[in-house]
Amino acid sequence: MKLLARKTDVSVSEPISAINRDDALEMGVGPMDRVRVTLDGTATTSVVISDSTVPKGRIYLTANIMSKCGASDGDSVEVSYCPLPESIRSIRKKIHGGRLNREELDSIVGDIMDGTLSEREILAFVSAFNVNNADINEVADLTRAMAATGRTVDLGPGPIYDFHSLGGVPGNKITPIVVSIVASQGLTIPKLSSRAISSACGTSDFVDTFCDVELDTESLKSALEKAGGVFACGNEDYAPVGSRIIKAERPMGIDPRPVMIASIMSKKVALGTTHLLMDLPMGEGAKIPDMQAAEDFSDDMVALGDILGIKVECAVSNASQPIGRTIGPVLEARECIETLQGKGDPLVAEKACAIAGIILEMAGFDDGASMARGILSSGAALSKFREIVAAQNGDPAVEPSDLVPGGYVKDVHAKHSGYVQYVDNRSIVATAKAAGAPFDTGAGVMFIHKTGDIVEEGDVLFRIFADSKAKLDRAVESARSRRPMKVDIRPVEHDPAETIMAVFPRKG
Amino acid sequence: MKLLARKTDVSVSEPISAINRDDALEMGVGPMDRVRVTLDGTATTSVVISDSTVPKGRIYLTANIMSKCGASDGDSVEVSYCPLPESIRSIRKKIHGGRLNREELDSIVGDIMDGTLSEREILAFVSAFNVNNADINEVADLTRAMAATGRTVDLGPGPIYDFHSLGGVPGNKITPIVVSIVASQGLTIPKLSSRAISSACGTSDFVDTFCDVELDTESLKSALEKAGGVFACGNEDYAPVGSRIIKAERPMGIDPRPVMIASIMSKKVALGTTHLLMDLPMGEGAKIPDMQAAEDFSDDMVALGDILGIKVECAVSNASQPIGRTIGPVLEARECIETLQGKGDPLVAEKACAIAGIILEMAGFDDGASMARGILSSGAALSKFREIVAAQNGDPAVEPSDLVPGGYVKDVHAKHSGYVQYVDNRSIVATAKAAGAPFDTGAGVMFIHKTGDIVEEGDVLFRIFADSKAKLDRAVESARSRRPMKVDIRPVEHDPAETIMAVFPRKG
Repeated sequence: MKLLARKTDVSVSEPISAINRDDALEMGVGPMDRVRVTLDGTATTSVVISDSTVPKGRIYLTANIMSKCGASDGDSVEVSYCPLPESIRSIRKKIHGGRLNREELDSIVGDIMDGTLSEREILAFVSAFNVNNADINEVADLTRAMAATGRTVDLGPGPIYDFHSLGGVPGNKITPIVVSIVASQGLTIPKLSSRAISSACGTSDFVDTFCDVELDTESLKSALEKAGGVFACGNEDYAPVGSRIIKAERPMGIDPRPVMIASIMSKKVALGTTHLLMDLPMGEGAKIPDMQAAEDFSDDMVALGDILGIKVECAVSNASQPIGRTIGPVLEARECIETLQGKGDPLVAEKACAIAGIILEMAGFDDGASMARGILSSGAALSKFREIVAAQNGDPAVEPSDLVPGGYVKDVHAKHSGYVQYVDNRSIVATAKAAGAPFDTGAGVMFIHKTGDIVEEGDVLFRIFADSKAKLDRAVESARSRRPMKVDIRPVEHDPAETIMAVFPRKG
Repeated sequence: MKLLARKTDVSVSEPISAINRDDALEMGVGPMDRVRVTLDGTATTSVVISDSTVPKGRIYLTANIMSKCGASDGDSVEVSYCPLPESIRSIRKKIHGGRLNREELDSIVGDIMDGTLSEREILAFVSAFNVNNADINEVADLTRAMAATGRTVDLGPGPIYDFHSLGGVPGNKITPIVVSIVASQGLTIPKLSSRAISSACGTSDFVDTFCDVELDTESLKSALEKAGGVFACGNEDYAPVGSRIIKAERPMGIDPRPVMIASIMSKKVALGTTHLLMDLPMGEGAKIPDMQAAEDFSDDMVALGDILGIKVECAVSNASQPIGRTIGPVLEARECIETLQGKGDPLVAEKACAIAGIILEMAGFDDGASMARGILSSGAALSKFREIVAAQNGDPAVEPSDLVPGGYVKDVHAKHSGYVQYVDNRSIVATAKAAGAPFDTGAGVMFIHKTGDIVEEGDVLFRIFADSKAKLDRAVESARSRRPMKVDIRPVEHDPAETIMAVFPRKG
């Protein structure tokens, strides 16, 4: 049926149009059915509202739909009944408890990619695809479907190593150290990290202060050929559908495990990973609250890896307080390079060597952690680091002193004497963000004391860095109201020095 | 923080507002977090987008949010961070595979009722609450939470009988007959039906042609006291949250079983039902496709009933073609009264007596179907029907001839000789709707022949009634393109006369 298009300003997240009730009846279109709107061969679909207040012969369209089919106000467009897309039938099947095959998951993932499915529909899919309603073979098919939405890269015949942190612990600056240790032994490790989403500093945010992180596929391959490892930034080349799904999940604050692990693994599949070590930060507020959750998560990851031909191990790490002494791009970059130089907080080196050691063991070496410590103390890791920095167009001679934090500085002091009871991750991140991190690269927080330390009244607990007086004040105000560190007289019992608490699957 | 409200025309289905990124940072509000917007003590919440293009000190609000907090363009409103509502935490817990308790389900249902949850969030809940991710005790708690959103009625001490059809078969005009048979034996049966949603005629649509269907609680009680039974229209007095959930489900075309059965049972709980017979129309295109699905559905309903103190049985009925000879309000009303008078299609009487018979057996009578046939043929059902019509303010002396179908009539003829192979429910409903049903009460379809009949070329298959020439033409065109009945030379093997195929739970 030919209808006259009229633009309306209703709704952005739902593709909705409105037509007259009689026109709807004539087309056989019921309430909330879909119609196809076509102009000069360019078609788009929309969900339709029929109403007697819409004049006959008219269709009200949102700006988004108008532009999708190239229509302007007053154009005559062809409108016809459009059956539900196959992908919606598949989502319905999942909601009703059915099992989806690869073809059905392909249609869902494809329709998420090309915008046929609205965020509401993506969210319905994600909600239905929960741990009790999806088996590991479906998760594997979803993983492959997601990987197929972007490029796949052939990085050569050898085993491809990778590691991936679930996140949730601030100051986790170990990536360049781990990559350098592993690559120094001739292993291939194309590590792609991300920028901060809700944190104060992602790995790519601090690496960006001393070399390029945005590598296209050709640069990635070339850097890998030169140095054997990279610490670049993941991008939309690989399994790009993942970020669309995350966008739909965000308002609900959800990330159900089957979709989360498919999303992680889809990027590994795209890069041809053969061996993957997962870092699972465990602690209050992290995605992994306790050891049972870690083991469950590990079981799923290992089983998924088995189907996809990727050997997976999971290291449960301590997320009870930030890693090392700094939070914020420039501050973390400095601490990372200092650690490679044998300086800085020994716990950063310890976690990096533990993680790198497990990867070395996956590659067949014995006693990986000791080996990693040797590689670090010999300077071999630092040399490899400088090689990779050069391959990523950075200055290979970069020194910590080249990286200058923000010029506005303020110390936060202990109000009384005693033991530092804890550093609250969430609050300290809020303070670092209030100071401007990660956008202001010099902004952040440096710890003078951490959990378990004995302090005297008036001692400096941590130092805030900012690029402007206003942001410094804002961060100080945040620290004052949130109290990220607590001091009292009770001794602290747990050992904050433990970096890796368990590795799954447990050995023989 | 005080911000200046500015109206924007973006989005109706999501409560979204936009603020400046620095303002967001200052309030500690991240992307897609919620803020509370308050003016003169009236508060509402919205999901927030932060963007550097929004001027500092401003907040862009949709018209919907503006009106919820009573703000006008240019007003200064108080904006503050708002933690996620408990209900969203509970929905997330369900999506992550957790089990919800009554308190959590109450918070979800309450926030659906008062509009705190958007349709997207309701849809996420419904999708997560699927057969593999909800147990029967959770469904019972959801049922009770839904029942608590409206009135509950005390209809006296005696057992309260009810029956409920899952729908999907056109022409199913048995409700007043069943109610009259059951009530004639002194049993209480407050039957609430619905109007058509996507069909051509709901029970309330045809009952409305000869008596009132919209009864408030007091009228319902009074009619029940007078007559023992009613055939009224369900309304928003009882478990009103159900219709909000259905509205959110509609665009996806879903109705997951745990939510569907909770929705059905919540209205029964509100009315104090003690014995419920479910009519499960089975056939292609119906909600129950086969006997296994019927038994599964029945198992769930019976188990849910056990927890709620409602004895449930399920009758699987034949939905392979429409029930009786007519579709459309006036036509169905006529056929219903004719059946009560011992005339009309014997299959209508047969289905009504089978259903009523099971209810009579639930009440302790023997051989209910024979008993029901006796009640119908003796005229006792007709007398009770006239009593109930009077109690619902209708003319107790109503005769079929008082009900006059549309004056524009057209016959549809067989194109060749042979057996009627089938009547396609979906197509014949489309034809009746094209003729104007259910809004034009005189519009509809009357069958001269049905499945299995032998017809000669040129015989009338069915007759279309409409209130206007235009709608008649439209219906004829619909019948021409959709071909709701098919004739060919193969004999028809299945027995279209079978009305009830099984009753669950099966008797030992």
